[in-house]
Amino acid sequence: MPTVHHDDLRAFASACYQAMKVPRDAADLVADTLVQADLWGHQSHGVMRLFWYAARLDSGAMIPDAKPEPSAGLGAIATMDGQRGMGQVAAKAAMNHAIELARTHGIGAVSVRNSGHFGTAMYFTRMAAECGCVGFISTNASPAMAPWGAVEKRVGNNPWSWAAPAGSHPPMMLDIANTAVARGKLYLAQQRGEPIPDTWAIDAAGNATIDPAAGIEGTILPMGGHKGYAISVAMDMLSGVLSGSHFGRYVTGPYVAEGASGVGHLVLAINIAACRPLPEFEADMERMIADLKETPRHSDVPEIFYPGEREAKSDLRLRKVGIDLPDDTASELCEKAKKLGVTAPFSS
Amino acid sequence: MPTVHHDDLRAFASACYQAMKVPRDAADLVADTLVQADLWGHQSHGVMRLFWYAARLDSGAMIPDAKPEPSAGLGAIATMDGQRGMGQVAAKAAMNHAIELARTHGIGAVSVRNSGHFGTAMYFTRMAAECGCVGFISTNASPAMAPWGAVEKRVGNNPWSWAAPAGSHPPMMLDIANTAVARGKLYLAQQRGEPIPDTWAIDAAGNATIDPAAGIEGTILPMGGHKGYAISVAMDMLSGVLSGSHFGRYVTGPYVAEGASGVGHLVLAINIAACRPLPEFEADMERMIADLKETPRHSDVPEIFYPGEREAKSDLRLRKVGIDLPDDTASELCEKAKKLGVTAPFSS
Repeated sequence: MPTVHHDDLRAFASACYQAMKVPRDAADLVADTLVQADLWGHQSHGVMRLFWYAARLDSGAMIPDAKPEPSAGLGAIATMDGQRGMGQVAAKAAMNHAIELARTHGIGAVSVRNSGHFGTAMYFTRMAAECGCVGFISTNASPAMAPWGAVEKRVGNNPWSWAAPAGSHPPMMLDIANTAVARGKLYLAQQRGEPIPDTWAIDAAGNATIDPAAGIEGTILPMGGHKGYAISVAMDMLSGVLSGSHFGRYVTGPYVAEGASGVGHLVLAINIAACRPLPEFEADMERMIADLKETPRHSDVPEIFYPGEREAKSDLRLRKVGIDLPDDTASELCEKAKKLGVTAPFSS
Repeated sequence: MPTVHHDDLRAFASACYQAMKVPRDAADLVADTLVQADLWGHQSHGVMRLFWYAARLDSGAMIPDAKPEPSAGLGAIATMDGQRGMGQVAAKAAMNHAIELARTHGIGAVSVRNSGHFGTAMYFTRMAAECGCVGFISTNASPAMAPWGAVEKRVGNNPWSWAAPAGSHPPMMLDIANTAVARGKLYLAQQRGEPIPDTWAIDAAGNATIDPAAGIEGTILPMGGHKGYAISVAMDMLSGVLSGSHFGRYVTGPYVAEGASGVGHLVLAINIAACRPLPEFEADMERMIADLKETPRHSDVPEIFYPGEREAKSDLRLRKVGIDLPDDTASELCEKAKKLGVTAPFSS
């Protein structure tokens, strides 16, 4: 299992995207979002996804050099057409504009249509937290769940995130996909011959199941049962319907080579100083975090974390010791990069 | 079990509050929020809570005639001091102001401090949906859960809601408490001698339990495990910390007779017409709802609902047939009202 320095991994990922005709700026951005997910310990959202977007870039379904710009809406709100580009590019531009709007108006919103899969939501809300704002982002996504009581996928996992500065601590960050678990966990349980909790998936007939194979045939359940269903539909309303983008079963995911994605987002930035002095907010965030961390805990639990703290700790550590790439990821990346004429900074 | 017409129940509840020195307008509002919860089928949030607030009004901890007003913040954002009044009064005033701001600025926000328990969150977001806006509200609440891995309550259930108009349908509405279940469900299981799912509660040592008695001794778990913990903390950041109100374990709940509540809220209204023409938004909401409802379903499931639909159907039915009051609720209400010189429109 090769261990790679994050700078080398980022340069490699960017070189791959540039070889796929993505302009330098956008290539650097998407590379950074993937490496950042690895640094945060979210390997499932890291460089293992590097070539996810290749088929769509290749087919022209996703436009590598799209340059989405905000259009004036009304005062504190703007709209943006993602121009079928990479979702990361639209999300970053939208958050930057929302932060600008929040400087003038106290709060800023950008409603984004015709964008694409943007990876890790908290990459973008963190931008707001670093500018003295509370940030929010939502997105819709291709169908992953059945409506509550149904047996056919028509609702995406529709991730959403809130983030806020936390004084001397790294930002408080929340990044929620509305599925109970990632599909990968069912495959893992199947490989290991282990049952799954009956809250993870339904079989093809819609019955709760503890058999991972039946769950794979069926559908993943929402987090928190019917609550996750309702939340995910609400996020699609905010992301897809409000922006005039696709929604529900009309959203195309990153695994499909053809067709406009139709993903939409809603981006918000709230200027904390418009509510109360930022240093007071930050001092209270520190108190809140101290209270959470000092709560008496279960004897097996070494430490209580506030939302985003695990990720920040992982980031600090992996920037020093490097990112471990699983062998299958490393060999896949090496092989595919080679076809583009890019040499990986690790061997498979 | 008496059945009462909603108008009679509303007039009765308002008369009780007026007898507790709450001004007519505020008494009518709080009465309406309770009766509306009953009409929506959320009896746990209905008139059975009428006298919850009595001890706090009596002690002076809650000011019956508080008149919270918005203070200009920056452009599209305002702040509000709830003046230790009833949370419903502050929440309604804040949502009205957010809708006004959204008319001018495309989006409006009101950050509310020093308020109180406001009951059903979607009562207030529905106001936005009825004005062509997407509405959001969050609140914090007194501690109900332990931080993830801990054994002591320091995090409220911190409810939040989104709502949006849905064309020819009643609004789409989401109303989420971040606990896995209401505490009442543990008492019910205990009475029935039934085990509980191991995702509902931990025992006093912090271990997952299927024994309702052990769960009652312990703490309710968050919905969706660690995700619900993170969401609830984020809602406290938005509601308590952003507004400069109390947060975490410093929030006082409605059951405690003394002390400022310190509850805070965040209220948002997004003017849909600033993003796209409202009729187009509504037409897409209708398509989205049709798709959800037409999804093939489990053989035991008679109908798929969109978020808020069950409540709307219940409302329609109970406005006609009346609201059934459980005997213990009816007798408690009769008895307590009698002491205030108010005659109930039902017998116990």
